[in-house]
Amino acid sequence: MSNLEDILKSRRDTRHFTTDEVPDEVIQKALQAGHWAPSVGLTDATRYYIIKSDEVKTSIKKLFLDYNKKAEELTDNPEQKELYRSLKLEAIEEAPIGLIIGYDRSVLNQFTIGTIGSNEAVKFSSVCAAQNIWLSLTEQGYGMGWVSILNYYQFKKILDLPENIEPLGYFCIGKPATNYNNQPMLQQLHWKQKSEAPICAEITEIHQINISDFEVNSKNEIETKPDFNKLLQEKIDSKTKPVGSLGTLETLAFQIASVFETLNPKIAKPNIVVFAADHGIANHGVSDYPQDVTRQMVTNFLEGGAAINVFCKQNNIKLSIVDAGVNYDFPTNADLIDAKIAKGTQSFLHVPAMSETEVQLCFDKGKDIVQRIAKTGSNCIGFGEMGIGNTSTASVLMSLLTDYPIEECVGRGTGVENEKLILKQNILKKALENYSGQADLISQLSYFGGFEIIQMAGGMLAAFENKMLILVDGFICTTAFLIASRINPNIKQNAVFCHCSAEKAHFKLLEYLDVKPILNLDLRLGEGTGCAIAFPILKSAEAFLNEMASFESAGITRK
Amino acid sequence: MSNLEDILKSRRDTRHFTTDEVPDEVIQKALQAGHWAPSVGLTDATRYYIIKSDEVKTSIKKLFLDYNKKAEELTDNPEQKELYRSLKLEAIEEAPIGLIIGYDRSVLNQFTIGTIGSNEAVKFSSVCAAQNIWLSLTEQGYGMGWVSILNYYQFKKILDLPENIEPLGYFCIGKPATNYNNQPMLQQLHWKQKSEAPICAEITEIHQINISDFEVNSKNEIETKPDFNKLLQEKIDSKTKPVGSLGTLETLAFQIASVFETLNPKIAKPNIVVFAADHGIANHGVSDYPQDVTRQMVTNFLEGGAAINVFCKQNNIKLSIVDAGVNYDFPTNADLIDAKIAKGTQSFLHVPAMSETEVQLCFDKGKDIVQRIAKTGSNCIGFGEMGIGNTSTASVLMSLLTDYPIEECVGRGTGVENEKLILKQNILKKALENYSGQADLISQLSYFGGFEIIQMAGGMLAAFENKMLILVDGFICTTAFLIASRINPNIKQNAVFCHCSAEKAHFKLLEYLDVKPILNLDLRLGEGTGCAIAFPILKSAEAFLNEMASFESAGITRK
Repeated sequence: MSNLEDILKSRRDTRHFTTDEVPDEVIQKALQAGHWAPSVGLTDATRYYIIKSDEVKTSIKKLFLDYNKKAEELTDNPEQKELYRSLKLEAIEEAPIGLIIGYDRSVLNQFTIGTIGSNEAVKFSSVCAAQNIWLSLTEQGYGMGWVSILNYYQFKKILDLPENIEPLGYFCIGKPATNYNNQPMLQQLHWKQKSEAPICAEITEIHQINISDFEVNSKNEIETKPDFNKLLQEKIDSKTKPVGSLGTLETLAFQIASVFETLNPKIAKPNIVVFAADHGIANHGVSDYPQDVTRQMVTNFLEGGAAINVFCKQNNIKLSIVDAGVNYDFPTNADLIDAKIAKGTQSFLHVPAMSETEVQLCFDKGKDIVQRIAKTGSNCIGFGEMGIGNTSTASVLMSLLTDYPIEECVGRGTGVENEKLILKQNILKKALENYSGQADLISQLSYFGGFEIIQMAGGMLAAFENKMLILVDGFICTTAFLIASRINPNIKQNAVFCHCSAEKAHFKLLEYLDVKPILNLDLRLGEGTGCAIAFPILKSAEAFLNEMASFESAGITRK
Repeated sequence: MSNLEDILKSRRDTRHFTTDEVPDEVIQKALQAGHWAPSVGLTDATRYYIIKSDEVKTSIKKLFLDYNKKAEELTDNPEQKELYRSLKLEAIEEAPIGLIIGYDRSVLNQFTIGTIGSNEAVKFSSVCAAQNIWLSLTEQGYGMGWVSILNYYQFKKILDLPENIEPLGYFCIGKPATNYNNQPMLQQLHWKQKSEAPICAEITEIHQINISDFEVNSKNEIETKPDFNKLLQEKIDSKTKPVGSLGTLETLAFQIASVFETLNPKIAKPNIVVFAADHGIANHGVSDYPQDVTRQMVTNFLEGGAAINVFCKQNNIKLSIVDAGVNYDFPTNADLIDAKIAKGTQSFLHVPAMSETEVQLCFDKGKDIVQRIAKTGSNCIGFGEMGIGNTSTASVLMSLLTDYPIEECVGRGTGVENEKLILKQNILKKALENYSGQADLISQLSYFGGFEIIQMAGGMLAAFENKMLILVDGFICTTAFLIASRINPNIKQNAVFCHCSAEKAHFKLLEYLDVKPILNLDLRLGEGTGCAIAFPILKSAEAFLNEMASFESAGITRK
């Protein structure tokens, strides 16, 4: 046969061979034809292995039988199954020559031309070689059958092929016993009809794809918010992950970018501020700890031994300690911010905790502290507190501001056992009943107080004005947020609720505020520990937004 | 030209064309030659697209230039870079005819002969067609050049090719302006010398494969250490905080100290290992992402652009990537651990996903990987996975092992919308009904498989034996834990469940295991991201236990 068209047309995937030997020259000529096939970047990666041994053939046949049985089970259609079973799909043992065509993928370890879009080009070169060999054998009056029904892992193992050699299949070579009536065997046996002609279409136009370059467009000036939000969401959705699959982290990333008004937000100089103060109500047995523990703990903060010290150090957060009104005269200490209003509030069981002027002073001092921190370049501030008795103050304020009955606003605090809970509830109930003051916020704050609580509220308002992230800790801190949001509801946009504490009233309050906390770790320590522990999760949100590849940049198929 | 040998020998990968037009008959004859190429199982999957439009060519040229620049940057050798730059590797705009040869991978949705060992046979048929076309054009006095330096993702997008069509490349066709002195152009330009002769060896014997016997019984008796536990609890309670107020952190600190058998535990060299593999079931539309995304994501991991890269970098965790059985040949890469069992499992809809030998191999390889990591001094290992379709595998395994109905074990995976959920459920239900195998673990794993899932299970068993902390990620990883804990229930002592994912089956599974996850962030990404994000919380637990002051050392009043 000499005409290319005749050769192409009569080339068959042959499974029926005579017992005639195949002369070496035929194989050599065929392999030379393979060698003339394209080789991407001239990698010369194609490798050939000849098999004549009956033992080797038998082992390969076993592999075929194993996988062919699997294949047979793939169809539920009994007729199809029957027909499949009747098909002869190999001639491994009968064909005098077995050939393995494979490629050496280690060529990719060096710089290679033509493989950047897909390294499959190396493999494709070997397939072209296979086709050349097929044509050459056809021309010489021989036939070949490609067996791909094999477990390639075991195939490589039993043949002891090197790790880097990937076989395309096992090829049976011999003198064909039939020409299948000049058609593919599967057509002759009515498995399927080959289509009449090649399937071809013309492409006449380009489909535009928009790959927006966020880095170039961002520049920090955000003209209209809807556009910004859209760009931001697009950036989040362009990351190499299913849309929404980072859950809360995606919400956080959106929030952080919105607060900082940039598509490439960076948390800078995070700072946790612990406001400490004493409470007159502590003298009525609402806590299991004596009031003195407030000042002991302030000393512990300054000495670096408290939980908040450890967590801030762990996560590279600056820690600031504020004396908002501890019942103790601290020696001057550069590390302690002095914002003392008085040595603890009065007991609201009988009298107002503080004057209205003191309320105003609390707001001012809190604002001032945060303002100064903002000026250092910090854009992320966490709020924490320390004050024996302050869960009682927080409970009463929550009840007043939310209209929830006091029973639902009282928790165990940091050290109240079952027996004491009832006592605490009764005291607070009585205090609320005693209150005959006005329903305005300043009057309520003045009566029930909490120097550190109101200073935190003031600080949150300043943080919002300075476009900072506001990290909210546990129950007491969330009560401060409740107060601040009564003054400026917009601060919610900047607030991250770091955890839901074991204090059941905290859960209720978060629900009331309609916010979702990041962590649920049964923490009930205060000190801003929830902010510090949750902080790495904010960093994760920031990191994925800034550092992850996009589908486009990574060349990954988008859904 | 009429002699096959002459045609084979003179076929060139042509990049230099005259301006002569190519008559339609020439193209038709060439496509007919392509049509005579083999077609595995008579799938007729090859598709052709013709391009004559200058606008379309210009857009494709742009894609080439973009990736060619990338390719150029791949070599550091200045001489090589210079030579590379001088090479003409395409003729997209000059060649009168552009041809795209591709294949329709949707043919695999039906029962197909010859694709059970590897579904690449479909692709290979199209490559054979490409070679036939090349030969036909050569015979007719024309030439062709194969351009593979393209971002195929963008290539498909701009041409608006259907999702299921996979192009082999862009082929330039025209009248050759040179024959490169009868040799490949790259040889003429001294880039490389083509080897003289084909590289061929004879295989004369079979290599026996031995896989160590699977150990179902793990030793490791845990004696209870009442004294140690008491000392540890005392240490935790001595810290300057109300007893129990650090909630989950206290439980974690207790666990970490118990696993490391010391009151001063230190997490050393934390490592997250992502096991990647493909799943035959992915061909049945259970995921919204094509299977190819598995290998694309592995590349993304290796290039540092995925979520897990970002989070590991953030939290100083070493990241290891394992090819447990991705349906792709990765070039040798020191950063990719090769534990490939096969190129994806078989589809358990009809046949076993893998053999029992392969199950054992998975356990062995997973154990070996973790063993080696333990030897580097790591005592904390996180498990992650990547594999399109693996939520389906996990769902089926969960249903089998827990006896929960499949409906309760099926989630949306990483990309399944409402309509598809029912389809997914039905497919998995059918697969379970088809299963007539035995109720023992190995039979079940062999049938439903998941190379990466079983390797993770093996790895967890080794982690336990090496007294490591085992960080468990999401649904799929927890399924691996379920498997491992059937073999050795003691591993639960070392396991930290990092999060509860948005996948509802995960919640059910955690409940079944009676464990409490650390985070609830609606994550559903996999890759071990939950482990990486939760890791700082483990560090917080370690830090408070080691670094906080005690009541005694700080002089603070104890309750």
